[in-house]
Amino acid sequence: MSGIWGRNLKVSIFGESHGTGIGITIDGLPSGFEIDLDKVNFEMGRRAPGKSPLSTARKEGDNVEILSGFFEGKTTGTPLCGIIRNKDNRSRDYGKLRDLMRPGHADYTGNVRYNGFNDYRGGGHFSGRITAPIVFAGAICKQILEKEGIKITSHVKSIGKVEDVNFNSLEIEEEIMNNLLNMELPVLDKSVEEKMREEILNAKSEGDSVGGIIECAITGIKAGVGSPFFYSIESVISHLLFSVPAVKGVEFGEGFNITKIRGSEANDSMYYDGDQVKTRTNNNGGIIGGISNGMPIIFRAGIKPTASIIKKQETINIKTKENEELVIEGRHDPCIVQRAIPVIECIAAIGILDLMKEV
Amino acid sequence: MSGIWGRNLKVSIFGESHGTGIGITIDGLPSGFEIDLDKVNFEMGRRAPGKSPLSTARKEGDNVEILSGFFEGKTTGTPLCGIIRNKDNRSRDYGKLRDLMRPGHADYTGNVRYNGFNDYRGGGHFSGRITAPIVFAGAICKQILEKEGIKITSHVKSIGKVEDVNFNSLEIEEEIMNNLLNMELPVLDKSVEEKMREEILNAKSEGDSVGGIIECAITGIKAGVGSPFFYSIESVISHLLFSVPAVKGVEFGEGFNITKIRGSEANDSMYYDGDQVKTRTNNNGGIIGGISNGMPIIFRAGIKPTASIIKKQETINIKTKENEELVIEGRHDPCIVQRAIPVIECIAAIGILDLMKEV
Amino acid sequence: MSGIWGRNLKVSIFGESHGTGIGITIDGLPSGFEIDLDKVNFEMGRRAPGKSPLSTARKEGDNVEILSGFFEGKTTGTPLCGIIRNKDNRSRDYGKLRDLMRPGHADYTGNVRYNGFNDYRGGGHFSGRITAPIVFAGAICKQILEKEGIKITSHVKSIGKVEDVNFNSLEIEEEIMNNLLNMELPVLDKSVEEKMREEILNAKSEGDSVGGIIECAITGIKAGVGSPFFYSIESVISHLLFSVPAVKGVEFGEGFNITKIRGSEANDSMYYDGDQVKTRTNNNGGIIGGISNGMPIIFRAGIKPTASIIKKQETINIKTKENEELVIEGRHDPCIVQRAIPVIECIAAIGILDLMKEV
Amino acid sequence: MSGIWGRNLKVSIFGESHGTGIGITIDGLPSGFEIDLDKVNFEMGRRAPGKSPLSTARKEGDNVEILSGFFEGKTTGTPLCGIIRNKDNRSRDYGKLRDLMRPGHADYTGNVRYNGFNDYRGGGHFSGRITAPIVFAGAICKQILEKEGIKITSHVKSIGKVEDVNFNSLEIEEEIMNNLLNMELPVLDKSVEEKMREEILNAKSEGDSVGGIIECAITGIKAGVGSPFFYSIESVISHLLFSVPAVKGVEFGEGFNITKIRGSEANDSMYYDGDQVKTRTNNNGGIIGGISNGMPIIFRAGIKPTASIIKKQETINIKTKENEELVIEGRHDPCIVQRAIPVIECIAAIGILDLMKEV
Repeated sequence: MSGIWGRNLKVSIFGESHGTGIGITIDGLPSGFEIDLDKVNFEMGRRAPGKSPLSTARKEGDNVEILSGFFEGKTTGTPLCGIIRNKDNRSRDYGKLRDLMRPGHADYTGNVRYNGFNDYRGGGHFSGRITAPIVFAGAICKQILEKEGIKITSHVKSIGKVEDVNFNSLEIEEEIMNNLLNMELPVLDKSVEEKMREEILNAKSEGDSVGGIIECAITGIKAGVGSPFFYSIESVISHLLFSVPAVKGVEFGEGFNITKIRGSEANDSMYYDGDQVKTRTNNNGGIIGGISNGMPIIFRAGIKPTASIIKKQETINIKTKENEELVIEGRHDPCIVQRAIPVIECIAAIGILDLMKEV
Repeated sequence: MSGIWGRNLKVSIFGESHGTGIGITIDGLPSGFEIDLDKVNFEMGRRAPGKSPLSTARKEGDNVEILSGFFEGKTTGTPLCGIIRNKDNRSRDYGKLRDLMRPGHADYTGNVRYNGFNDYRGGGHFSGRITAPIVFAGAICKQILEKEGIKITSHVKSIGKVEDVNFNSLEIEEEIMNNLLNMELPVLDKSVEEKMREEILNAKSEGDSVGGIIECAITGIKAGVGSPFFYSIESVISHLLFSVPAVKGVEFGEGFNITKIRGSEANDSMYYDGDQVKTRTNNNGGIIGGISNGMPIIFRAGIKPTASIIKKQETINIKTKENEELVIEGRHDPCIVQRAIPVIECIAAIGILDLMKEV
Repeated sequence: MSGIWGRNLKVSIFGESHGTGIGITIDGLPSGFEIDLDKVNFEMGRRAPGKSPLSTARKEGDNVEILSGFFEGKTTGTPLCGIIRNKDNRSRDYGKLRDLMRPGHADYTGNVRYNGFNDYRGGGHFSGRITAPIVFAGAICKQILEKEGIKITSHVKSIGKVEDVNFNSLEIEEEIMNNLLNMELPVLDKSVEEKMREEILNAKSEGDSVGGIIECAITGIKAGVGSPFFYSIESVISHLLFSVPAVKGVEFGEGFNITKIRGSEANDSMYYDGDQVKTRTNNNGGIIGGISNGMPIIFRAGIKPTASIIKKQETINIKTKENEELVIEGRHDPCIVQRAIPVIECIAAIGILDLMKEV
Repeated sequence: MSGIWGRNLKVSIFGESHGTGIGITIDGLPSGFEIDLDKVNFEMGRRAPGKSPLSTARKEGDNVEILSGFFEGKTTGTPLCGIIRNKDNRSRDYGKLRDLMRPGHADYTGNVRYNGFNDYRGGGHFSGRITAPIVFAGAICKQILEKEGIKITSHVKSIGKVEDVNFNSLEIEEEIMNNLLNMELPVLDKSVEEKMREEILNAKSEGDSVGGIIECAITGIKAGVGSPFFYSIESVISHLLFSVPAVKGVEFGEGFNITKIRGSEANDSMYYDGDQVKTRTNNNGGIIGGISNGMPIIFRAGIKPTASIIKKQETINIKTKENEELVIEGRHDPCIVQRAIPVIECIAAIGILDLMKEV
């Protein structure tokens, strides 16, 4: 039981990669909010594959049909359900994968968890495709936050070993935010873009894949959002980020690197800038004691290399109980990091909206 | 609202550092479980300060009184509440801290969040002291897991820039686990122990503090625990870890480093070892698709340097609305990393037990 | 935020009477359960209007399309979503009801609750039509319970002032259960059936409506299901029953009448019948301290007269802020009691399954 | 797992009748609320036994000690925990009740539910004594509601077959509310008071007990509180009321009697009284579609006769597996209806506050 999340804003996801349809229900939206569907589709488009040689050629038909909770262009306040039909759900491609477990995918763990009754085709409910409805829901939340002056922006911090610089954690300029939104590989230091592209295409040519790190900034959030202990901002955001298949690490502010500096530096001295409270540094990523302090919230998510590769791999056949070699034919997705950006931003938007409804 | 967590096992915490008492209620324990109170006290002792020059000299009276849910030495199955009285709750020491916000502490964010009505003394509800009841509850969960053959073990992966080696993520030997349990600074490579100690004492002598990283392994867990998406093992464990004040980063398996390798390596090839399914590597830390695969679960938590330092700091006075310098007198805690180990292990035990009750 | 319910089994509903579609997602079903879709459709049919002069002539197209969680005829264990499209969603009929609040309906309260942005057509999200997906979900739960030997049966205890006898609360015979399932007005004492029919048709001919009481029995449930206090069987079942629009009273066992007898009688003496524990009477309706005692669980739900009438009524116009007379033309539903039976049974099945997953 | 309830305001109860202590944690209170402890104690006093010949002579020491969440006379906004120590927890009285199950009590069902490990003394966690902390928590919520102009008032609608008149459901006068608060047997029609007293004392003299019905009114609540379906006011209030041991029936407005009238009457015609929306009748008890309409919320709870009687009863011995006669010696409680009033009011206050925090 894991498709429902939230306290003050709840989402309920469903669907399998090759089933009839996937979707999400959002409960707890304010009534009367005018949804900008173009903006929602823009976010959906950022996530969709098939648009660039950097990702898989598979085209997904990510047209969301809103079934409820939306009347005369505005939210009603009652549950809003959006569904996406799976157009191309031929199961023949997946015949041998009923028994042959793809390493790095949830084929084996899903099989054990659901006693062999899970829909194995294309990863079923474990497919990254289920993040499409999450982007749909989060894109709405993002709009609501924007009305409150809160923006969520990201860049590719690294692809494999190629690294971009970090955000200036004290202030993210409007112009930078806008630029990042429209880049295929959004980076701050444009000189690394080409190297990242090479990293991806090299892996692709070998039938292999690469991962990377996404750095995200939430700006415009007032001090006082979040709670101590079990509903700290870090708890809520990390919970959601780790729901995204492929995320293996999450850190806030300086994150693991804050352990390398002394307390006197890590503490982020405070001062009044006029009547506004600010900190001289932002090692804590805008969160102290689980609660926002008014500085930008900064976090990073580590995305593992795409599990879908076409290189030969060693694995198990659960029917014959023997070890086998696995070669998957056809196209593959050499890198999902850039496409994961809207997922990370949108799922964070869900979390922030839930937290803000608390205060 | 943030003191209650859980689905199949729920915990409800309460208390302030200098209030009357702190405690926790655990709802959902099995009935008839014989609690080994000595083992519980052992875990409490690992967390308690005042035992070594490496931590603060403040002595906490962490004697838990069980009020309910425990009858004739066994759990009843109804809510078990344990409380700890705060012996030394003089508030005079904290007079000036009503208005002067300590950097790195939740003084300012807590003040905003609770409109100035929070108990500011010693950090109030934000105090690390509230982790004592969490250790109490988690120590019980740990015992229950042990009965199922599941063990949780940790070592100090780093203090400041001094690093220990990593766990062998394919198998943790019983002997290593036992050794770690009884070391003041539990490390795998004993040659780094002395350097870590120096790192701590150096910071202490300067009135400063250091942080570090804890690496934790959960062994003996069968494949099939956890769920896709919102209740992945990573989501649940990270949610709980980030509840602990001072945790700023969490990663599973190779974590952020998995982004530096190729998919073909990251995928952890599978094979049958007899009739047992194993992986050749464990880059995913025993978790694929949010679900355990039977390999050890490996994660790391980054602990920021203790916020309590006695070095002069720049901060704000919320009464006068002016910037001020802050010097806190008396003892301080130069490093909480080693004391955070039982907290990390026990809170993870709560999460794992909750997840196991799902399947 | 009210469309999501459950702990161990969760349901998430959505939809408006005249929107695009309505539906439900069920999270927490066991994997590998073979759903008998004919049985599901049978329950849907019991609820559907348009089949008899006793209910409205409006035909609803209650064909559920399962989008997810169902693979090769069996549940996958991941969220199962079923949707029903609204075929006939012309809004023109409802023009004047935008401002004119129908008494007894949630037009006014819904308008206030959602600041005027609710979909007012046909009651929108407040429509009894939303119980169709609940029947769909509950019908699946009912099948799962049946596999465990648990049956849920009901009869119309009263229509207006016409009363049927009560169930024999100590044992409900199999044959009686089967008969009730196939009657248009399921009653125990067939001599009252005709009087009930008259009561309904009389009201209908006057453009008015009647209500009634449904008595329900859950048999085959073992002792030990349910919990003290907040998750008593009574709490869970009443919570769900009162979710059904039109339910205004719920009682267990002798219910309000138990207040008229003495404790010595109310206590239900216990005895061993072989090695089975039974009670001589069942005034407590099979539940003591919130937990089943192995006797049939008996409860009654009072259903208010259908709010949809065509008789002239006094009401308010929220636009003009004036009092007005309201006459709704066309067909109306003189009695929903018989159609509410599958709703009551199916929603109770959801509750019982949730409770059973706890133990 | 049943000791934790709530969404926007959460309570977590614990304790057994004869254990070390009982208590409750409230999470989600506003910060800075000044609690009037005298008023809290007044409510506690209304529930406490031992004050009148109408109830048991057992004296309970219901002094609540607040451990947390309360600082300088005000709520902090963090979890507030209150505990009550059990002074008189001799277990010797209960020796034979380990095996001999008292009818009407949860001795047998609790034993099965918790596999024989429950604390059986005095009903353990199932004891009505656990309602004392609920009154404590609810008394605080009641004060918070009062600040918003919302009052909760009750009278004894019946004791056994002796009936009081009903509230005027359109308006409850302030003076009536005040009078009811200070009567030992709060009734509207004082002529029935003496008959009720006789009914109780008659039962008492025979070692038996009586039950009754409590009618409760919540006034001053604005239209728009509550939600459709799963979080209707009726769902939330009934859920909480049925948590109270001994409640076997709950109805709103005319409740079961609304099924005896026609829709045209049941619909409660609406009109503008100035700019205020009112209804001519209040058959729906102030709730339509689960949401308040601004009229008084009226509900009734049926309380079964106290299970604790001293008359001889037939029961089972779970050790010998034989049927036995049971005679409990000493004092008993002939009627708890009047003492249940503060419990009903306070638990309803918890529910209403939770619902109001939603809107």
